[in-house]
Amino acid sequence: MRAAIYTGDPTLLVEERDPVPPGPGEVRIEVAYAGICGTDLHIRHGAMDDRVPERAVLGHESSGRIAEVGEGVTPWQVGDPVTVMPLRWCGTCAACRAGHTHVCQTLKVIGVDIAGAMQGSWTVPAEVVLGLPSDLPLDQAALVEPTAVAVHDVRRADLRAGEQAVVVGGGPIGLLVARVAQAQGAEVVVLELDPHRRGVAEQLSLTVIDPGQTDVAAYVQDWTSGAGAPVAFEVSGAAAGVRTATDVLGVRGRMVVVAIHSEPRLVDLNRLFLRELTILGTRVYTREDFETAVKLVAGGEVPAKELISRVVPLSGATEAFEALESGGGVMKVLIDCQATS
Amino acid sequence: MRAAIYTGDPTLLVEERDPVPPGPGEVRIEVAYAGICGTDLHIRHGAMDDRVPERAVLGHESSGRIAEVGEGVTPWQVGDPVTVMPLRWCGTCAACRAGHTHVCQTLKVIGVDIAGAMQGSWTVPAEVVLGLPSDLPLDQAALVEPTAVAVHDVRRADLRAGEQAVVVGGGPIGLLVARVAQAQGAEVVVLELDPHRRGVAEQLSLTVIDPGQTDVAAYVQDWTSGAGAPVAFEVSGAAAGVRTATDVLGVRGRMVVVAIHSEPRLVDLNRLFLRELTILGTRVYTREDFETAVKLVAGGEVPAKELISRVVPLSGATEAFEALESGGGVMKVLIDCQATS
Ligand SMILES: [Zn+2]
Ligand SMILES: [Zn+2]
Repeated sequence: MRAAIYTGDPTLLVEERDPVPPGPGEVRIEVAYAGICGTDLHIRHGAMDDRVPERAVLGHESSGRIAEVGEGVTPWQVGDPVTVMPLRWCGTCAACRAGHTHVCQTLKVIGVDIAGAMQGSWTVPAEVVLGLPSDLPLDQAALVEPTAVAVHDVRRADLRAGEQAVVVGGGPIGLLVARVAQAQGAEVVVLELDPHRRGVAEQLSLTVIDPGQTDVAAYVQDWTSGAGAPVAFEVSGAAAGVRTATDVLGVRGRMVVVAIHSEPRLVDLNRLFLRELTILGTRVYTREDFETAVKLVAGGEVPAKELISRVVPLSGATEAFEALESGGGVMKVLIDCQATS
Repeated sequence: MRAAIYTGDPTLLVEERDPVPPGPGEVRIEVAYAGICGTDLHIRHGAMDDRVPERAVLGHESSGRIAEVGEGVTPWQVGDPVTVMPLRWCGTCAACRAGHTHVCQTLKVIGVDIAGAMQGSWTVPAEVVLGLPSDLPLDQAALVEPTAVAVHDVRRADLRAGEQAVVVGGGPIGLLVARVAQAQGAEVVVLELDPHRRGVAEQLSLTVIDPGQTDVAAYVQDWTSGAGAPVAFEVSGAAAGVRTATDVLGVRGRMVVVAIHSEPRLVDLNRLFLRELTILGTRVYTREDFETAVKLVAGGEVPAKELISRVVPLSGATEAFEALESGGGVMKVLIDCQATS
């Protein structure tokens, strides 16, 4: 089988490797598709070299089929369609003991800290595997992981049916957050500067605004009859996005910071005071979020199919990354890891 | 009677005025004591000239006795000891309709937007008046208002018995927050740079640390057995205080921003993400918080007496402000508004 390897160089090395037989408690998966996300882009450019192992196999968004079952693993049969919840926690730190294993103080992400899905054959602990409905196409199933992120974000917001939510940033996660919020009965507006992304949002029947053209504060004031929005999701990763998400909120409004902001951001604490706002950090997902995500993708509530812009064979992994970085006209890019490709 | 008037100059004018007879639904209070707080200091230096009326009477922390009762006011008798919850809300905005009148979108503070307590005789709507136990000394009762702030802050934190809380800043509000948190069963550490304030905190049997001398992060790590604190109160108003309050929190920690930060502050959103922190804005108090504050002051759970550094007659109002601004060795300064002074 082949694997795409990050060796410290932006050009990924695609090399032939022997499949790893599953040990006790493990399964071997024949990977069908691996999605590329922002974290993978950062890794490729060396921004996370202190975290990733040598000769790393990336990929934490995946789908595939069980190919081999290790000793003591009972729930899986060869051929079962599956995805992987790519988290490993310590089980002993204060966070884990408090039941918040997804924010374990030494959390490891499979595909970042440990070998990931961008390979034809992938051996993982059986406990990270989740089953998929047999009629769910495996390309769409590769979007379960980012959907689980969106499910967790919406849950952190404690979003209630009928509430109005502003989603700042209309990339793949932003649109998934928007659709998950709608599935909870919320009314949603997406803000997005990029015309292609706005176009995708419109095709998904989302209300989308160009914050470069529209006075967002005035729009939201009007939309909410002067109250301001009860919920805002910051999914842009930009300093301006933090400002916008704060500005649109009404009294007791909740802002969920979904995007990664690697540097500190200026936050309007005077508005936080005046309106008794709440700012919530959010990280990955729980098993329950992941199971909900499987249902939402399978049920069509989230637009997995519509978000897939391109599927590239494993041999073209570097080009797949470049397509995503070029930005124009691309939402989600999947790597097809199947032997036939 | 005399009143201390802010005319746009830092020197307050003390002038003789006629008492205002209470109209229907109003009462006239003979003010005993008025406390000075940070907001009053800002007003005196012109920072809130866009908000305060011309020839403003400051003072929103007060105690006194009912002197005259207007038409239709039934609950009060002349001589009753009282304090004032100095808020006026519109009743019709989105916040008020949602029941959050204390964050009314056009909230007015009596003593800021409307004539306040620094006068011998003060006429106010009966509905802002709260009764005091007859055995509570009226100088201590002037601390009910800042105590209500602390009660509200602790309630916003959803602080539970046995939890550990870091209070960043050991001024009057910080120490009140610390004692209210203790009254809820929390373990508290106060951080304070000023040696006099640390001394007061120690006299109150609070654990207090000099963040200029001690590695706070290491201290809190040790204190919480590596977990980080579940709650931090930012009461310093400084950029460094925001950083410290973020740094000490453990997974799912809650930071309550108590101090006013008139300019945006850099916030470590990466830590917010890694630990799924929550940042909560907090503003004034509800009627329920005020009633709780009366009980805590009357019961001695908060150190009202110990926080009073100086009592100055109304004729010395300017000197009272200056004493507070000079900083050294002063916590709470009260103005004695009684005719005999
Ligand atoms: Zn852990
Ligand atoms: Zn209102």
